[in-house]
Amino acid sequence: MALAYDGAIQRLIDAFSALPGIGPKGAQRIAFHMLSASDEEASQLVDAITEVKAKVRFCDVCGNVCESSPCPICADPRRDRSVICVVEEAKDVMSVERTREYRGLYHVLGGAINPMANVGPADLNIPKLLDRLKSAEVQEVILALDPNIEGEATTTYMSRLLGPLGIRVTRLASGLPVGSDLEYADEITLGRALAGRRDA
Amino acid sequence: MALAYDGAIQRLIDAFSALPGIGPKGAQRIAFHMLSASDEEASQLVDAITEVKAKVRFCDVCGNVCESSPCPICADPRRDRSVICVVEEAKDVMSVERTREYRGLYHVLGGAINPMANVGPADLNIPKLLDRLKSAEVQEVILALDPNIEGEATTTYMSRLLGPLGIRVTRLASGLPVGSDLEYADEITLGRALAGRRDA
Repeated sequence: MALAYDGAIQRLIDAFSALPGIGPKGAQRIAFHMLSASDEEASQLVDAITEVKAKVRFCDVCGNVCESSPCPICADPRRDRSVICVVEEAKDVMSVERTREYRGLYHVLGGAINPMANVGPADLNIPKLLDRLKSAEVQEVILALDPNIEGEATTTYMSRLLGPLGIRVTRLASGLPVGSDLEYADEITLGRALAGRRDA
Repeated sequence: MALAYDGAIQRLIDAFSALPGIGPKGAQRIAFHMLSASDEEASQLVDAITEVKAKVRFCDVCGNVCESSPCPICADPRRDRSVICVVEEAKDVMSVERTREYRGLYHVLGGAINPMANVGPADLNIPKLLDRLKSAEVQEVILALDPNIEGEATTTYMSRLLGPLGIRVTRLASGLPVGSDLEYADEITLGRALAGRRDA
């Protein structure tokens, strides 16, 4: 009895299953979609993958993804060069950009300290950040790491490392997410919101 | 401010977003995964897509997907040629095969009657089924269509169409899914389970 698909389809299902966030059912659905899709749609995906692998690289200055180094943000003369926002991943740069509240530069660490996954400070893009901080221009480093255990550990490590340099080191505010419900806030978040209360 | 990604990355995110079941966040996650993946993993996916588009076709007999026509199931001399199981999509063939309860042949309709999506009987792979039924070998047709409105409409249509041919036409049993809870069964399913009750 044929309990797996014929060679080529099964290989496509396996290839899609290997991507993050796609399970076996989803991979099968996508594989059958590709099968009935136009050759044009299929080659669009193929070309996009090939192009990204060929063209996209990491900015030598900040570690962000880009097609030319330095990246458009590092190269933009209108950005405020006195502030560097430190994030874990390149996609976090886009999240901060979307707020339209930040005009400074970025630095992508490429992860967070995570002893369980064997990621220590030496695995992060920290030496280049220290190089950048030698410039007298930089007056503030914003640590915008994920508010989870790994991000908190990295924030603590970075703030101890950068503290002696005489540069202002800040971190993102913890508190209630806008549009949320006090009733459903977890006690740690609510505790942080209380501790960080401001005059109304 | 850069609120969208650089050309190539954005094109890859868009290409993944166009696939079924992948939203913008998932597409971004996959695109960044591709970026940091090895060239080998990337070319595995590219090759799998290219290979499927080049090699995979539909079986001339039953409409199932295959690399050679007739498909392995139609060509298998050990399959019972007196029964044809009619399904909506090629992926449903695999679902029935996985039960290990069926040894007959298949026929893939390529969809179900759906007036809202402008799919009528003329859009389905019915003429080839009627051709196959001309063979004296076939004694039963099992209508294994999805138990939803479109599947029910197609089952009714097919059973009226095939009834006069003097072949036994059957359909899958409706009832409570195995492992489920009576309390949470919807009233239509429970009603069908009652109507279809058997001696214990």
